[in-house]
Amino acid sequence: MGQAYFNLETVLGLEQRYRATLINSITGFKSLCLIGTKDLNGQSNLAVFSSLIHLGSNPPYLGFIVRPDSVDRHTLENILTTKYYTINHVNEENYLQAHQTSARYPKSISEFEATGLIESYKSDFPAPYVANSQIQMGLEFKERMDIKLNGTILIIGIIQHLYFPEACIKADGFMDLELANTITCSGLDSYHQTKRIGRLSYAKPDQPVKILL
Amino acid sequence: MGQAYFNLETVLGLEQRYRATLINSITGFKSLCLIGTKDLNGQSNLAVFSSLIHLGSNPPYLGFIVRPDSVDRHTLENILTTKYYTINHVNEENYLQAHQTSARYPKSISEFEATGLIESYKSDFPAPYVANSQIQMGLEFKERMDIKLNGTILIIGIIQHLYFPEACIKADGFMDLELANTITCSGLDSYHQTKRIGRLSYAKPDQPVKILL
Repeated sequence: MGQAYFNLETVLGLEQRYRATLINSITGFKSLCLIGTKDLNGQSNLAVFSSLIHLGSNPPYLGFIVRPDSVDRHTLENILTTKYYTINHVNEENYLQAHQTSARYPKSISEFEATGLIESYKSDFPAPYVANSQIQMGLEFKERMDIKLNGTILIIGIIQHLYFPEACIKADGFMDLELANTITCSGLDSYHQTKRIGRLSYAKPDQPVKILL
Repeated sequence: MGQAYFNLETVLGLEQRYRATLINSITGFKSLCLIGTKDLNGQSNLAVFSSLIHLGSNPPYLGFIVRPDSVDRHTLENILTTKYYTINHVNEENYLQAHQTSARYPKSISEFEATGLIESYKSDFPAPYVANSQIQMGLEFKERMDIKLNGTILIIGIIQHLYFPEACIKADGFMDLELANTITCSGLDSYHQTKRIGRLSYAKPDQPVKILL
């Protein structure tokens, strides 16, 4: 395939939506989750995110990026005021509804109601889970880090609750996301199934990598 | 499938490697890239990362997470001292070698040489690209943000150079990562191909989502 090249100047000169579509797709495949919150009046909110990242395992910290000028802002407000939120994996059954949560609904409308996704409450946790997500987490807000370069915010939380299909956890702790029907995304609007190529052995300097399964 | 449940206490009580394997896999599918750097003596370094995130499109900022106590530390040192690094997508052709870069090689050994991946230099950019990566970016370091909760670091850079196969960019700016043979990963050692389910229309409150292709 012929190679193409853009430099920073080219990128800055692109039409705005073309540039956003391009730059959002060149980071590779992304995690895909629905974040559920409530405001102080009990109004629920649900929004799709593709920026979830692992920050630590002991204790288990996860982070995600919020853009305050977007539909993310209700999620942000609710997390900062109530301190609790859920993270729910998106699967083939609910990805159309997940995508629909990115529409600009007014704050008075719950994206659960608007999209038909079902709220689920468990273990006295105040934030709503998505009923048909196979992997669900309840998080407590820990820290907000403001990225002054462009006004985005990294929100960090600790996993307090983790629900998953029993069959999906393997003997070594690995969670089989394909078995859980979790999907991935690229760019702003492209959704993908996955097919395992292999799990690889722990890498050591003088040993070739082995495909384990 | 039967549901299983862990709370924070369960997670904190897990055996260390089991916990790391679990928590690294529950964030969903991840981006997968090789980051290439040089130290001030010209020694090259290459390391695999699965935490690349989009932070902004205008200007194009990308971030990734570094753990200073891991093999990531050479990458971190080199970025902080030289200010330049490359981000290269991992594909089916080089994923075994990409995984092998996570072995703890001493600083005097280049992971390019150790794994057989070929260094490529372009446009006078000081950091090495991976020759058989289809999508390659040259970044300039912009900001380091220390996450005091657990000592991890968010490194932010701006895209100065972007190379990609011409056939992979669509009319709206979308980069077709499947066509570029880019793969995804889950957990610490699981690699996956993808298969597109669909691209969806821009979500609007009173309009159902359409599958575009």
